[in-house]
Order: sequence, then C-alpha cells, then structure tokens
Amino acid sequence: MSDHIRLHIPGPVEVSAGTYEAMAAPMIGHRSKDFVALHNDVHPRLQKMMGTTQPVFLSTSSAWGVMEGTIRNLVAKKALCCCSGAFSDKWVDVARRCGKDAEALQYEWGTPINPADIDTKLATGEFDVVTFIHNETSTGVLNPLEEVAAVVNKYDDVLLVTDTVSSFSVIPIEFDQLGVDVLLTGSQKALALPPGLGIFAVSEAAFDRAATIKDRGYYFDFHEFKKNQEKSMTPSTPCISTIYGLRHQLDVIFEEGLENRYARHEKLNNLVAEWVVANGFEFFAPEGFRSKSLTAVKNNKGIDVAKLGQIMREDHKKQVDGGYGKIKGKTFRLSNMGNETEESIAGLLAALDDSLAKL
Amino acid sequence: MSDHIRLHIPGPVEVSAGTYEAMAAPMIGHRSKDFVALHNDVHPRLQKMMGTTQPVFLSTSSAWGVMEGTIRNLVAKKALCCCSGAFSDKWVDVARRCGKDAEALQYEWGTPINPADIDTKLATGEFDVVTFIHNETSTGVLNPLEEVAAVVNKYDDVLLVTDTVSSFSVIPIEFDQLGVDVLLTGSQKALALPPGLGIFAVSEAAFDRAATIKDRGYYFDFHEFKKNQEKSMTPSTPCISTIYGLRHQLDVIFEEGLENRYARHEKLNNLVAEWVVANGFEFFAPEGFRSKSLTAVKNNKGIDVAKLGQIMREDHKKQVDGGYGKIKGKTFRLSNMGNETEESIAGLLAALDDSLAKL
Repeated sequence: MSDHIRLHIPGPVEVSAGTYEAMAAPMIGHRSKDFVALHNDVHPRLQKMMGTTQPVFLSTSSAWGVMEGTIRNLVAKKALCCCSGAFSDKWVDVARRCGKDAEALQYEWGTPINPADIDTKLATGEFDVVTFIHNETSTGVLNPLEEVAAVVNKYDDVLLVTDTVSSFSVIPIEFDQLGVDVLLTGSQKALALPPGLGIFAVSEAAFDRAATIKDRGYYFDFHEFKKNQEKSMTPSTPCISTIYGLRHQLDVIFEEGLENRYARHEKLNNLVAEWVVANGFEFFAPEGFRSKSLTAVKNNKGIDVAKLGQIMREDHKKQVDGGYGKIKGKTFRLSNMGNETEESIAGLLAALDDSLAKL
Repeated sequence: MSDHIRLHIPGPVEVSAGTYEAMAAPMIGHRSKDFVALHNDVHPRLQKMMGTTQPVFLSTSSAWGVMEGTIRNLVAKKALCCCSGAFSDKWVDVARRCGKDAEALQYEWGTPINPADIDTKLATGEFDVVTFIHNETSTGVLNPLEEVAAVVNKYDDVLLVTDTVSSFSVIPIEFDQLGVDVLLTGSQKALALPPGLGIFAVSEAAFDRAATIKDRGYYFDFHEFKKNQEKSMTPSTPCISTIYGLRHQLDVIFEEGLENRYARHEKLNNLVAEWVVANGFEFFAPEGFRSKSLTAVKNNKGIDVAKLGQIMREDHKKQVDGGYGKIKGKTFRLSNMGNETEESIAGLLAALDDSLAKL
C-alpha cells in the first residue's frame, strides 16, 4: 500500500500479511468447541514460551488492564513499585487509584533497578507485592530480573509481579524457575500482533493470595480466569480474531525456533547498536542493561529529533519514535521487535543515514 | 472456506470479508496523528448513532469490562440491578465483587422489567444507580427503555446505566433525549465486528458522580477516558485493528442509512417470527416485548434442541444457539443482527425446516 508507513516504534510494531490473513478466519462462538480448539492450540505453546506449567490467561484488554487487575487481586498490605521510567512510574499511581497502599522505589530514568534496594525495603516487612518492569520500554533499560526474583523469593509473603510487555519472546523468561508470581505481556510488542490482547501467568501463591482479597471484581479476577481456563475458555467474550493472529504468530515463532528467535533479536539489536556507535551517538541505558528489543538512543549530538522523525516518515515511509514523556527529544527509540529481519533493519539504518544527512 | 460454519447465534455474529479487509490496514502508533485521524473518523458517527453530543469512548475490552468499570465509577450508595436473564442477573454479583452494595430487582427470566417496580424501589432513597439491560440476549426480551428512563429521571440523584449490547444499531436509541447516564455496547453483536471493543457514552451527571468516587482505578476510569478523548486518543493502547473494522462498518451502516438499517432488522426479525408461528413454536418473550435482534424460540414442542443444532451444523454449516444457562434446551435462539439479508435469513429458515424434518 503506497501510504503504508512502516513502524519501527517500540510498539505497536509491524503486523504481517500472514497474521492479518489468519485473523480473517470465520468468526466462532466463544462458548463453542471451535473456541476450545483454538484455545488448546495456543495455550501449551504460551506455557512453553513462559517456562511454566501454570495456566496462561488470555485477557481481552491491553496490558494495563492486567496490571490493574493484578494490583486488585494481590495487594493487601502495600505494593513496592520499582520505578525508573514512564511505565514503571505509573504503577504507583494506578495502585493508589485502586485504593491500595503503594510506595515508589524511585530511580532516575535510565538507571537499572538495584536488587539490594528491594531487599532493604522488603526487610521492613511493610510490603506484600513488588511490581517490576523487566524491559522499561520508555528508556530501553533491561532490568535484572533474575537477581530481583532471587531477592523477592527470600520473602515468603511477598509476591513478584513482572511486566514483560516488551521483553516477552525477545529473550528467554522462565516463570517457574525464577519464582515469578505474575508475568504479563501484551500482543502489540514482540509478538507482532495488533493491540488488544493481554497474556499472563499466575503462580499458585498468587492464586492463594487472590482468594483472600476482597473487591477484586470480575473482569480481571484471577479465579474467574482459572475457572474458565480449566474449560479452555475465558471469563468474558475474548478478542477471537486477535487470538487467531496469535495462533499464526506462534506457528511462525515455533517454526523459527525459540532459540533462533532470541538470537535473531540479539543480532538485529546489535546491528542497531553498531549504527549508534558509528554515528557518534550514545545509549540512554548503561552498558550491561541495554534492552534487546529496542534501542533508546541518547541525543548527545543535539539533533532535531522531531525533524528526523518527519524526514523518516515523509521521505522513507518509516516511523521511529522521538522519545517518550520527559525524555522526548533527548532520546529517540528504534525497535527491533517482532518479525524484523537483517534486511528490514538495514533499510531502517540506511533511511536514518539519509535523514540525518538532510537535517 | 469449506469449513466455514455460518453463525446465526446472538453474538459473535458473522463478520464480513470487507470488515476483515479493513482490519488488515497497516498498523499505526496509538499516539500518532494517524490514530487521531482514525478516532475522529469514527467518533462523530458513534455520537450520531447514540443520539448524543457527549463523548463516546472506545474501550479495549468486552462489554463486561465497561459494565464493571461503570459500577466502580458510579456506585456510592447502592445499585438497583434489574434482573430478568443471565446477563442482567450477573450485574448484582459483579457489583458486589467490586465491593459495592447492590440489590436485585428480580423477575422470572422472560418477564419484562416493570418501570413501576423501579419507582417503588427508588422511592426508598436507598439507591444511586440503576442497572438495566435494554435487550436481554439470553431471553430475547426487549425491555421498555423509554418508560424506565422516565422513572429514573424523576430521581435527581439516581443514575441510569443501560446495556445495549444486543440492541445498539438494531433500533433507535437516543441517549441525550432519554436522559440515560451510561450507555454501553460491544462490537460483536449488531455491529458485526470481532469481539474485543466496548463502546460507551457517559452523561455529565455521571462524570460528576465519578469525580466523587474513590478507588475507581485507571483502566476503566471515566475521567481518564474523557481526558484522552479530548485529544482523540484512549487511556491505554487501543485495539486498533478492530477500530479499523468499526470504521468500515460505520461506512456500511451510514451508506445503508440508519432508518433503513432499523427497518431491515425489523423485517428480518419478522421473517423469523413468521417461521416460528408457522412451525407451531411459541416465543419465550411476551408479545410487545420481543427483541428485534434475535428470537428466543420457546421449545413448546419438546424437540431435541441439541440435535437440531448438530444437524444445522453438520448438514447446513450453520450455527444456531441451543439456549443459554438454565433455559438451555427449553429455548433456542436465532439472530438477525449485523449484516444479515432476506436471502441469508431465508437460508437459515430453510435449513431449520430441513433439520426439523430430520429430527
């Protein structure tokens, strides 16, 4: 399509023709055996990708809906919210709006979460939930999930909620092995689906906690999800077309192979990193904590980021992101999530070269 | 497609090839001017269909999400839930699960809501919200919205929440004129879209009430929707592909003309009704309160409804509904929502004739 602007923003990302074709499968009833078959086709593969034998739930919502639901299901005492970017900062506000007590463990944007700080906080005994964003999409920081999980697991009565919105399917994440209690993601990032589907797993400890919590509602109630999942269904009418798309993308992912997919994301991410260095830019995230999904480029050269985006769009029909919230213009972001290839990333970088030259 | 089972269940309904094609438009960023353009294309037409100058919101959820959100936004004292079927009965439970006080105004399934009963209840001064389902999908009863609204409007401090999930776009509904406070619907019924999109309007009185209510959360917060709608956006990442589909269906609807569409639904509904009578069946809903969207056929002849459904599916590749919940087998339901035509309904009825003969 001539007016197609190719997305290189960190979500939504490009959706393939094959996915759209899969989504156009005939509509089915969500209480029918057709839906049961669809559910049972995707479910074990999602478990495998999450590294869990726990049920994985399909939520007809964006990931924020699941995040809010998680707060409502789990927080009895107080949530410790690890904050270091636009999305992680928001958890504190959302938790409080749900009537929950919450405290920010606040870092400068771009600074990785320090597990030792979590340990100090949890030692007070004030907290029963930790919210943690694995890959902070706004800053391009990959936080140390393994170390954070090890700390939280020292505390029997504290549950770890992990947002993998922009890391899921990019790097391996082992839910059971890590001892995570809720792992959530969304459809429009590395799964390369349209937005509107939240996917999440819940530990037994989290189910037990939820059972003791009042006022958790219906739409995001973990036990409603569990009860329905046992019948291969969802509590409410699910976004069936997006789940058809998910089935297709799971076919694509498992055909490529999980390890190959992780390796491809790393390789493409490295290509972007090489371009950053070669062009005299720096990274917003510190070395060792850089996302494999996207690159937040620090605008240390003081270029006109808005204009760069405009040239990319007008001359190259490609959309890059000009920075999120308070780091808009001070950073720009390039995604390598989803179905990107060496060729498509080469095209992105060539277009960036041309656009930079025109600034 | 040879394995295509045509849906004649009361939602999800058949989705057209044109809608799927529209949904395959290139993905866009939800904070981009492209999304603003999409929003501004659908919004005024939704206002027109709802008969309102209030903002109309796009919720990435099924209608139940909006229902729960509405409860959380509006109930301070107590909700009066008009109950007369599977879906209306559920409101009481959902309200209580949100920690709200709620009372059922309970009728036998199939009995229309009596506005005088609401009046008696509201006169106690105990209630601040009435929940009301316009077209109870489980029983095929069309409840008297105009009369109910007139009663609720007598009470200044009581808000009327109206679920039009299976009546919206089938019969005219005038939000402003009726004095409704929240009107909500879903995408997978008469709009003939895939599920996953909730659509709702909120009155000024409801915004005012919500502003006084604590713990209403973020994902379904009316004021978050309002603030974002003013920028032609949504609070969370929206189900963009479904909104593309909505844009297409609005094109189809306005090309047909709203009045013509209402007339078509009535005509198709009458064709089904004639078949019911001609075949010696009765209606589950009383005369004068029959839905125009679907027909709940009373199984007064004691046929094997499950077998009827099976023959319809196997021999005719058509799916009808064998009754919902406690009236399963005692009723069966035939939908004429969405893009159905005289031809497609004739095909449905001929298939039913054949299937009945084979019982």
